[in-house]
Amino acid sequence: MQLKFLAETSSDDVVDRSFTIGDIPGVLWSPVSVPAGAPLLLMGHGGGLHKRSPGLASRAREAVVRDGFHVVAIDAPGHGERRRSRRDQQWVDAMLRARDEDEPLAPIIAPFNGSLAERAVPEWQLTIDALQELPGIGAGAPIGYSGMTTASAIGIPLAAAEPRIRAAIFGGVFVYDAILEAARRVTIPIEFLLPWNDHEIDRDSGLALFDTFASEDKTLHAFPGSHFHVPTERIDTRFFTRQLGGPGSR
Amino acid sequence: MQLKFLAETSSDDVVDRSFTIGDIPGVLWSPVSVPAGAPLLLMGHGGGLHKRSPGLASRAREAVVRDGFHVVAIDAPGHGERRRSRRDQQWVDAMLRARDEDEPLAPIIAPFNGSLAERAVPEWQLTIDALQELPGIGAGAPIGYSGMTTASAIGIPLAAAEPRIRAAIFGGVFVYDAILEAARRVTIPIEFLLPWNDHEIDRDSGLALFDTFASEDKTLHAFPGSHFHVPTERIDTRFFTRQLGGPGSR
Repeated sequence: MQLKFLAETSSDDVVDRSFTIGDIPGVLWSPVSVPAGAPLLLMGHGGGLHKRSPGLASRAREAVVRDGFHVVAIDAPGHGERRRSRRDQQWVDAMLRARDEDEPLAPIIAPFNGSLAERAVPEWQLTIDALQELPGIGAGAPIGYSGMTTASAIGIPLAAAEPRIRAAIFGGVFVYDAILEAARRVTIPIEFLLPWNDHEIDRDSGLALFDTFASEDKTLHAFPGSHFHVPTERIDTRFFTRQLGGPGSR
Repeated sequence: MQLKFLAETSSDDVVDRSFTIGDIPGVLWSPVSVPAGAPLLLMGHGGGLHKRSPGLASRAREAVVRDGFHVVAIDAPGHGERRRSRRDQQWVDAMLRARDEDEPLAPIIAPFNGSLAERAVPEWQLTIDALQELPGIGAGAPIGYSGMTTASAIGIPLAAAEPRIRAAIFGGVFVYDAILEAARRVTIPIEFLLPWNDHEIDRDSGLALFDTFASEDKTLHAFPGSHFHVPTERIDTRFFTRQLGGPGSR
């Protein structure tokens, strides 16, 4: 499917281009001057957020400026500019109700995230296809994936299915059978972020998920607090510059 | 107590000075040209190793060249150039025997490491005192401590007792009551390294120790393998340049 650029702005040495691929809206952040073969980082957004959520946009710009990467984000199904289906709305309502009433979220999140992942994985694959046809990126650019919570529920099956992804950061994700099954097929280097005091996501389920990844090169990073606030300044490990190379690794 | 320099060599932009403080033998690695206020990193060696063990010396030189730090190592009691006492020899013999016969090490390691720590903590404090009197270091240099296994058994009580240490990396350590008690009093930023598949040190004891540190700023880094091989290239987080500053943080 064809990628169409809709708008381009440029500030602080970052070129920001909105695009669509079919009905998938996305944004591509790039360095003003891009060396050939610069890595491409796929950045997933959390549940209820979107491709230009402030935290994501700020991390994306940092990866462009500091590491010389291209960064792409797309709206997950039912998120951002995309209409939420009736079924998704029911899941969201049920989740908000459970959160209000302090009831377990996992029984709702598991089918909801599972369904989102089934729809989102092929969309990310289309996005990679389309970006690899751009002359500024090409088929040779090393590709990484980064995203916690819902973005991990999508990214872990994506990394299991998509050999073009070479390294990934996941974490803070509800664990259910389909996630464990996908993790068993993930063999690329991963960094796994585990909020240590998350009242919604059981710590032991995160430790078990980390244990399940088939990757030989995997590291777990745990830090106080919940998945609502991740102190990235404490866990910056230059993971992608080490794994994907690029100007930032020099 | 007075620090006496015994020998000085210089290679690859690192000045290497052997010294003694009383009967404590040590080595100080420094940049050829040292900016005022450069941080000082105390580097502990593992059990059975010494102040110039190859892994330690290589990490020390890297911290000097990359981060512009001073790095100091001293021989722990009964290690390196220091005579092993009869009591220590009995512990070492018992430990090697238990390892040969695949018996639990913890009952031997706990009193042995506890005794080493009692002796080594005041020696590190004397070392800090003496180094702070050197004009090239001074009392203002930020101080960090880094060391796994036996060096954590010594470093955790040291960090609990010594307010001049501002940040520390620990990990891969046998856990016993005195370690937990000290961890409860550690409030500085720490990074805790946890070998994920250690057949000698129980994983849950490491997770419990991480949980026990009183530090608000703490991160756990777990990685496949045992404490005999730590893939530092995978867990490099620029922890000390972030915590202590220095030329490497710019």
